[in-house]
Amino acid sequence: MTHERTVVRGGLVITAADESHADVLIEGERVVALAATGSDVAAGWQADRTIDATDCYVIPGGVDAHTHMELPFGGTSASDTFETGTRAAAFGGTTTIVDFAVQSVGHSLREGLDAWHEKAQGNCAIDYAFHMIMSDVTEHSLKEMDLLVEEGVTSFKLFMAYPGVFYSDDGRILRAMQRSAANGGLIMMHAENGIAIDVLVEQALAAGHTDPRYHGEVRRELLEAEATHRAIQLARVAGAPLYVVHVSAEQAVAEIAQARDLGLNVFGETCPQYLFLSTDNLAEPDFEGAKYVCSTPLRPKEHQAALWRGLRTNDLSVVSTDHCPFCFVGQKELGRGDFSKIPNGLPGVENRMDLLHQAVLDGHISRRRWIELACATPARMFGLYPRKGTIAPGADADVVIFDPQERYTMSAATHHMNVDYSAYEGREVTGRARTVLSRGAVVVDGGEYLGHAGHGTFVPRATSQYLL
Amino acid sequence: MTHERTVVRGGLVITAADESHADVLIEGERVVALAATGSDVAAGWQADRTIDATDCYVIPGGVDAHTHMELPFGGTSASDTFETGTRAAAFGGTTTIVDFAVQSVGHSLREGLDAWHEKAQGNCAIDYAFHMIMSDVTEHSLKEMDLLVEEGVTSFKLFMAYPGVFYSDDGRILRAMQRSAANGGLIMMHAENGIAIDVLVEQALAAGHTDPRYHGEVRRELLEAEATHRAIQLARVAGAPLYVVHVSAEQAVAEIAQARDLGLNVFGETCPQYLFLSTDNLAEPDFEGAKYVCSTPLRPKEHQAALWRGLRTNDLSVVSTDHCPFCFVGQKELGRGDFSKIPNGLPGVENRMDLLHQAVLDGHISRRRWIELACATPARMFGLYPRKGTIAPGADADVVIFDPQERYTMSAATHHMNVDYSAYEGREVTGRARTVLSRGAVVVDGGEYLGHAGHGTFVPRATSQYLL
Amino acid sequence: MTHERTVVRGGLVITAADESHADVLIEGERVVALAATGSDVAAGWQADRTIDATDCYVIPGGVDAHTHMELPFGGTSASDTFETGTRAAAFGGTTTIVDFAVQSVGHSLREGLDAWHEKAQGNCAIDYAFHMIMSDVTEHSLKEMDLLVEEGVTSFKLFMAYPGVFYSDDGRILRAMQRSAANGGLIMMHAENGIAIDVLVEQALAAGHTDPRYHGEVRRELLEAEATHRAIQLARVAGAPLYVVHVSAEQAVAEIAQARDLGLNVFGETCPQYLFLSTDNLAEPDFEGAKYVCSTPLRPKEHQAALWRGLRTNDLSVVSTDHCPFCFVGQKELGRGDFSKIPNGLPGVENRMDLLHQAVLDGHISRRRWIELACATPARMFGLYPRKGTIAPGADADVVIFDPQERYTMSAATHHMNVDYSAYEGREVTGRARTVLSRGAVVVDGGEYLGHAGHGTFVPRATSQYLL
Amino acid sequence: MTHERTVVRGGLVITAADESHADVLIEGERVVALAATGSDVAAGWQADRTIDATDCYVIPGGVDAHTHMELPFGGTSASDTFETGTRAAAFGGTTTIVDFAVQSVGHSLREGLDAWHEKAQGNCAIDYAFHMIMSDVTEHSLKEMDLLVEEGVTSFKLFMAYPGVFYSDDGRILRAMQRSAANGGLIMMHAENGIAIDVLVEQALAAGHTDPRYHGEVRRELLEAEATHRAIQLARVAGAPLYVVHVSAEQAVAEIAQARDLGLNVFGETCPQYLFLSTDNLAEPDFEGAKYVCSTPLRPKEHQAALWRGLRTNDLSVVSTDHCPFCFVGQKELGRGDFSKIPNGLPGVENRMDLLHQAVLDGHISRRRWIELACATPARMFGLYPRKGTIAPGADADVVIFDPQERYTMSAATHHMNVDYSAYEGREVTGRARTVLSRGAVVVDGGEYLGHAGHGTFVPRATSQYLL
Repeated sequence: MTHERTVVRGGLVITAADESHADVLIEGERVVALAATGSDVAAGWQADRTIDATDCYVIPGGVDAHTHMELPFGGTSASDTFETGTRAAAFGGTTTIVDFAVQSVGHSLREGLDAWHEKAQGNCAIDYAFHMIMSDVTEHSLKEMDLLVEEGVTSFKLFMAYPGVFYSDDGRILRAMQRSAANGGLIMMHAENGIAIDVLVEQALAAGHTDPRYHGEVRRELLEAEATHRAIQLARVAGAPLYVVHVSAEQAVAEIAQARDLGLNVFGETCPQYLFLSTDNLAEPDFEGAKYVCSTPLRPKEHQAALWRGLRTNDLSVVSTDHCPFCFVGQKELGRGDFSKIPNGLPGVENRMDLLHQAVLDGHISRRRWIELACATPARMFGLYPRKGTIAPGADADVVIFDPQERYTMSAATHHMNVDYSAYEGREVTGRARTVLSRGAVVVDGGEYLGHAGHGTFVPRATSQYLL
Repeated sequence: MTHERTVVRGGLVITAADESHADVLIEGERVVALAATGSDVAAGWQADRTIDATDCYVIPGGVDAHTHMELPFGGTSASDTFETGTRAAAFGGTTTIVDFAVQSVGHSLREGLDAWHEKAQGNCAIDYAFHMIMSDVTEHSLKEMDLLVEEGVTSFKLFMAYPGVFYSDDGRILRAMQRSAANGGLIMMHAENGIAIDVLVEQALAAGHTDPRYHGEVRRELLEAEATHRAIQLARVAGAPLYVVHVSAEQAVAEIAQARDLGLNVFGETCPQYLFLSTDNLAEPDFEGAKYVCSTPLRPKEHQAALWRGLRTNDLSVVSTDHCPFCFVGQKELGRGDFSKIPNGLPGVENRMDLLHQAVLDGHISRRRWIELACATPARMFGLYPRKGTIAPGADADVVIFDPQERYTMSAATHHMNVDYSAYEGREVTGRARTVLSRGAVVVDGGEYLGHAGHGTFVPRATSQYLL
Repeated sequence: MTHERTVVRGGLVITAADESHADVLIEGERVVALAATGSDVAAGWQADRTIDATDCYVIPGGVDAHTHMELPFGGTSASDTFETGTRAAAFGGTTTIVDFAVQSVGHSLREGLDAWHEKAQGNCAIDYAFHMIMSDVTEHSLKEMDLLVEEGVTSFKLFMAYPGVFYSDDGRILRAMQRSAANGGLIMMHAENGIAIDVLVEQALAAGHTDPRYHGEVRRELLEAEATHRAIQLARVAGAPLYVVHVSAEQAVAEIAQARDLGLNVFGETCPQYLFLSTDNLAEPDFEGAKYVCSTPLRPKEHQAALWRGLRTNDLSVVSTDHCPFCFVGQKELGRGDFSKIPNGLPGVENRMDLLHQAVLDGHISRRRWIELACATPARMFGLYPRKGTIAPGADADVVIFDPQERYTMSAATHHMNVDYSAYEGREVTGRARTVLSRGAVVVDGGEYLGHAGHGTFVPRATSQYLL
Repeated sequence: MTHERTVVRGGLVITAADESHADVLIEGERVVALAATGSDVAAGWQADRTIDATDCYVIPGGVDAHTHMELPFGGTSASDTFETGTRAAAFGGTTTIVDFAVQSVGHSLREGLDAWHEKAQGNCAIDYAFHMIMSDVTEHSLKEMDLLVEEGVTSFKLFMAYPGVFYSDDGRILRAMQRSAANGGLIMMHAENGIAIDVLVEQALAAGHTDPRYHGEVRRELLEAEATHRAIQLARVAGAPLYVVHVSAEQAVAEIAQARDLGLNVFGETCPQYLFLSTDNLAEPDFEGAKYVCSTPLRPKEHQAALWRGLRTNDLSVVSTDHCPFCFVGQKELGRGDFSKIPNGLPGVENRMDLLHQAVLDGHISRRRWIELACATPARMFGLYPRKGTIAPGADADVVIFDPQERYTMSAATHHMNVDYSAYEGREVTGRARTVLSRGAVVVDGGEYLGHAGHGTFVPRATSQYLL
C-alpha cells in the first residue's frame, strides 16, 4: 500500500521540549521523518504535496481534553453538535477532542457511552475520544468502569456539584476512586461544594438577587477550594490519582500546589475563560452577563495572576476549554429573572490555541509551554500519547501550520462555532492556525474548510501516563 | 564540503518529551534527520557508518553541569585532569561538562578563566564549558561579569560556605545578584552557613570528634536550609534568578519548593551521591568514611525520599555530579585525625547516567524525566540548548546508544576516573552507555575508548533559558 | 441574710494567669476575698470553717465542657446517670459539666432540651449546663436556636459523622452556622467524614475485619483532617466561629493551626484519651480493645506529640473528656464480631484533672496552662466565666484543694464512675483532688462524698467570650 | 514594722486572666488582698489612704521591656535621661522598664553594665531592670553572661544589623545562643540583614535618594524576614529560645508564626509605632519624616493588619516601645541630606498603655489581652513575674487606676518625655492612666507628679518563664 506523501517545509517545529528548523515528512496518516531544513536529506524528499511553512510554526494539533458537544443541560442542549463543534475546533488548530459521555441516573455507563458514540460517529471533522461522566455510582457501574478502561475510555468524571443531577456524595466518590486505583482509570473532578452552594443559591434568590452576577457570588471561592481539598483527601484515602477540572479560584490552585508539593498525583486543569475573563463580564448589564455563566464561575480579575503562575509552575498542567455553548437567544435567556436557570457553559473550542499563543506574546508562558499545556500534556494525561500531542516519527500527522504574525479579531460574526455570541467578542489577538492537518489530511487551509464529517475517528485511549 | 554520514538504526529515541522508534541520521557534527524505523525514507538513507541500536535507547549525550577537574582544594588538587575526567565522562555517556573556573581572592575573573582555558584546551575528550567561581566580588570583578557573559561564560558561583576561601558575605552576594539581574547571568549558590558551621567544626574538634562522620554532623541540615532561604531572599531583593547547587537536605528542598510555589525563578540541583549514599557511608570505620566527605554533606537515608520527590515535582530540576575526586591514599588521608582537613569531594562523572537509569528501573523517575534531568534541563538552564541536551534536527550529534539490559558492577577496578576508589564500589546496576558519539565522532564503543584528547571544544553558552 | 464563711488557708492559689500564696475567703456560695497568707488581713478573717491547704494547690474547680451522661447510643445508654456521673466528676475535682442535650430527628430542640433538663434536675452533685446536639436542622429548629441562646444554651453541636443518626450535610451545617453567626451561638463540630467512613466500615466488615482495632483503621486520620478543613471553610463562608471537638489526629491539629494563623475564630478541643492512650490499646486482645472504642478514634502514639504541642501553642485550647461510658459486660460486648456495633465512648470525667496534672509533672504543660486548659478556657469558651473557671472575688466558690504529692493508681476497683472498667487501669499518677467545694459546699473530702444529689444546679450560659 | 495601708475601692480589677469588681488592699509596697467590692470583708478594711476607683479600671502597672534611656547613638544620645524617661513612663501608666545596658566593642559586659547602673541609680521614678547588649562576643564576654544571669540580668540582645557598631556575625550569634541555652539567659534579636542593607543604603545615597523615606525603602521587608528566619534557625541549632524585638514586617510575623506552629520557643515583640504609624509618616515633607526614622523601619499601612492579627494569635506576645527619643532640632537634623545619618529612634514610653487601650476600643484586642501584652507577658518573659505584671496577693503594688472614659489629645505640648515632638501629635485617644502607684507609693495622680527620682529601684530578674 502506498501512502500519499506530504512535506511541510521551512517552518519552526515546536514541541513540548524542542524547537527546530525542520521539514516534516508525512506519509499517509503518520509523521515519518523530520530533517533539518535545507539539508540534502530534506531537499531530496519527493512528495505529493508540499506545504510551505516559512515564517510559520509547525506545531502538533491541539488536544482539547474537555468538551461537551450536544450536552443536554437544564432542559436544553449545548448548541454545537459533534459536526459543528469539531469543525470549529479544526479551524482553531485543535485536532483531537475528548468529550464527555454521560451516564444518566438509573442507567448504565454502557448506555451512556453507546449514546455518545452514536452522536459522534460519522460526524466529526477531527479525531475524538471520550471520558465518561458517572452520575450513578453503583455496584454495577463500578464494574463497568473496568470494561470501559479496556475499551479505551479510561477516565471518569464525578461531580461534587449539581446535587440531584450529576452529584456524587463522598462515599460514591471514594468507591469510584478505589476502583480507578485498581483499574488504572483516572478520576476527573468537578470540585465545588454543591450542597452548600445550593443553600446560598436559594438564599440569594429569596433575597431578590437574580442577576447573572449572583451566579459568581454564590459559588464561593472557598467552596471550590474546600471541594478541591476534599477530593484530594479522598484520593489519598483511595490511593488514586486525581485530575481537577476547570480550576478557577486562587485558593483551589493553592490546594493543588500543596498536594503536588507532597508528591501526590494530583493534576489541575484550567480554561481560557478563567485566564482572560472575570466577574466583570458576569456583571455586564442587560443580562449580557449570562453569556459568561459557567461553573466553576469566573472569578475576580485578581485570580488570573495565580492561574498564570500555576501554569508556569505546573501546579496547573492542562488548558482545556470546557466548551459547552448555549445561544444567548433562546438558551441563556431561560435564566432571565433566575440566574440558577441559566444553562452553564461557554463556547471556546475554536479560541483556545490562539488565546494561549497570545499568552506567549504577553509573556505569561513560553512557546514550548504553550504546546505542552495545549497538546502534549493533555495527550499524555489521557493516554493519547505519542499518537497525539507531538510531532515525531510515528505520531499521527495532526499538524498545524501556525502563523504567529497574523492579527485578527475574535467575533461571533466570523467564528465557526454554532453559537450566537463569542465570549471574546472584539478581542484582538496575534497568531492563528493557517493550515490544519488531521491524520495527514488537510482539513482547514487559509480559512477554508477542506475536511468532511466522518473523517474524524474514535481514538481508544490508554491509561494516563502521569508522573510515577 | 561533504560530511561523513552516520545512521543510528533501530533504537528507541528518547528525549525529554518524546519516545519514538526512529533512525537518526548524522552528517558531520550534527543530527540532520529522524525517520520512523522501517519507513522507506529511513531505509533509503545511505551512510558511511551504520550503528545498530536495536534493543537500545538512543539518547542525547549527558550534560554534567557541575564538575571540578584539577581543582586546587585544601593544599591538593582534584585527581582527575580535564583529560582523564572527560574521558571517564564519555565512558559514562556524558558528552558535555560545565566545569568551574576559579577566581582567586585578589585576582581578576579574567585571570581565573584564562587559567582554566589553558588547563582544558587540547585535553578534553568531549565538549566543555565554564561557569565562573567568584571568590572576590569587587567593583572590578562585577564589571568583568558582563564581559564573561558576552564570551559565553554566563553563570557565576558564589559560596556562603568556606569563610576565608571562597566565601562571600551577603553584601557581596547581593551585588553579584544585582549585576546578574542586569546582564542575564545566573547566580549559582553553594548554600551552607559557613560562618556558623566553622563554629561547630571548632567545637567538634575541641571535643575530640575528629572522625569523618563529624563532617556530616557539624554541617547541619538546618544550616543548609537557612542558607538556601537566605539566598532566595537575597535573590528576590536583587530581582535575580537563582540556581542552588548540590541540595542534600530535605529542609532545603522545602525552601526551594516554597519559592517555586511563589513562581520565583529558583532552581535546585542535586547529585547522585545524595540520592544513593548517606551518613551511613560517612560512618564507615577505619577512616573509610573520608571517601564520602563532600559539602554539602551526605545526609541520613531519610532525606533521599524527599530528594526523589523533589526530582519528580521539579522542585529539583537538575542532577549533576559535583565531580571532584581525591584519592583515598595521599589525599583523603590528609584529614586523618582532623575531619576538617579531608579534601571535600567525590568522584562520579562516569556514574551519573547509569545511576539515574537505575532510578528509572527502581521506579523513582520516568525514562523521559531521566533525560530531562541529566541532559535537557542542564542544557537549557545553562544556555547550551538546542545544541546539547536533545536529539533533533540541527542539534549537535552528541548521541548515546544505551543498552538498558546490560548489568554490571561499579568498581574502581574498572572505572576510568583517575581516582583510587569508587563511591559506588560493588553496586550492581542495569543499563550502560554502549556507544557514545561526540559531535558525530564515536568516542567510546563497547568499553573501548576511540576518542582523543582535544576532540572536545569549548562551547560558549547563551544565557539561561529558564522559565519566564 | 448571713452566709456561712469558709477560709482556705495556706495553699498556693493557681489560676490561668497567677500563682500566689494566698488564703481564700468564701462567703456562702461565692469567693469573696484573697489575701496573702500570713498577712494581718488574712489572719484576721473569722470563719465558720477553716480548711488547711498547706502544701496543696488551691485551684478552680474543673470545667468539663464535654460529657454525655445517660446518652442513648447504639441501642443502649451511657452507664453514668447525671447522679453517678457528676458525683464521680466531683471526686475528680471537676465542679461543672456541660452535657449535651439531644434533638432527635423529627423532634424539636425544645423537646430534647426538656428531656435532658428532666434527667439532670435534682440529680446532680455539681453544677451543670447544656449544649444542644442538633440532629435535624430545619427552618423550625433554626428558629429555636435563638430561643435557646436566650435561655443560656448557647452552643450547638453538629455531626459530620454518623449518617442516619446525628449527621448533618454541608447545607444544614452552613445554615446552622449562619444562624449562630447571627445569634451569638457557637457551633461545635464532630469532624469526621462519616459518609466516606461508612464505606470503609462496610468494606472492612466484608473483608472479615471485625475486631475493635479496625474501628481505628477505618476512621482514617485523613478523614478527620478533611472534615476539620471543611468545617473551617464552611464557618468562613458563614462568618461564624467554630469549636472542633475531640481532635485526635495530627493532621487535624494542623488544619486548626493553619486557620488560627489566619486569625480565624477556630478552636480545638482534645481529650485525655488521645493524650494518654493509642491504637495499641485498641489492639488489645480478647476484645479488650472495645474498651477504647470512641470516635474520633485513638490514634497511633506518634500523634500524641502533636497534641501536646497543640496544647502548648494554643492551637488546641480545651481539654474535655467526652465522658460517655459503656460497661464492657453487656454494653461494649454488643460489638463482638462487628466493631461497628460497639457503643462509642469512654469513661473519664473523674480522671481528667489528675491526668493533666501528671502532664505538668511530665513536662508537657505548665501549672498555669493546666488550669487554663481544664478550667478557665472552657469556662470562657462557653460563657461560664467569671462565675466558673477561676478563683477571684465574686466567682462561684467552686474550689479544689489539690494535693500535688499524693500518689495513687487509677482503677475501676476504686473509681466512682458507674462503669465496670477504667480506661487508665493500673496507671499510677501523682497529684489528686483532696477537698472539693461546689458553690461553697464541701462535696468531697479525703475520698469521702459529702454532697448530695440536687446540690448541683443548672447554669444558664452567656455566649462565648472567645477572642475578638 | 507597720506598713502604710492603701485601699483602692470600687474599680474593675483587670489582669491577664480575670476581670472582677474588687477592692485592692495594699500594705507598704505589696498588694495584700483583694475582696469583692461591697462585701463585708472589703468594707471592714481600715486604711491610711483610700483611692476611689469607681468607674475606673484597676490594672497592673505597665512593663515596658524595651527602652533606651540616654543611649549614645550616631554621635548623639537619646534625649530622655533615666530621670525624665521614667517620669514620663509613670505618667503613661508604666511602672517598670527594662532598659538596655550596652557593651562597647573591646570592652567587657561588666563595664557596660556598671556604666548603666550608674546612669540609672538614684534617678528613676519607677523600678527598672536591664538587658545587656552584646556588641563583642568573645570567650570572655561569653563567660560573663553566666555571671550576669546570676545578678539578675538574664537577657542579651544581639544585632544582625548595624555592621561595625553592634553587629554580630552568625558565628558569634550561635556562640551566644549556645551559652544562653546553658545558662538560662534569653537572646533578644534585632533581626535585619544589616550587611545587605548597607549595600542598598550606599546605592540609594549614590542615586541621590537622601530623604528620610528611603530609610524605609532600603531596609527591605524581605531583609527583616530573612534575618528573622536565620535567627530562628540558629536558635534551633543552639537549642535556645529566641525573642525577636520590634517586629514590623508581615513576612517576619509569618516566620515567627511558622516557628511557633512547630512548638519552638520563639517569641515576637512589636511596638506601637508599627501598629499606628506607617511609611506615610516617613514620607512627610520638609524632613518631617525624620521624626519617624527607627529600625526596623515603619512599613506600609497594609502590614498593620498582620501585626494586629499576630497580637491576637500570640505569634506576637509583647508590645514594648523601643523608646529611644531624639529631638527633631539638633538631633534628627543630623541626617538632613543623608537619611543614614538620622539617629534611629522614636519617643513612646509615655504613650504605650493608652494607645493599646485605644486598640481595645477599636476592636483589635480584648481588655485582658491588653494587660497581657503590656504587663503580664513582658513580666513573665523577663523574669519579673509575679512581682510585676499582675495584681495579686504578694505582688508589688504597682497599680494603675485607669479612666477608660477620659478623652485627650497626644501632643509634645503636654507630654512629659524630654523630646521636642510627639510621634502621635494630634492623635485623640480615649482612656488614660489617672493614678499610678509604684511599690505602694502614688507617683502620679491626676496629671501631677508626686514621685521622686530614686524611688525606682533596680530589680534583678529571674530567667524567662516562657512556655515549656
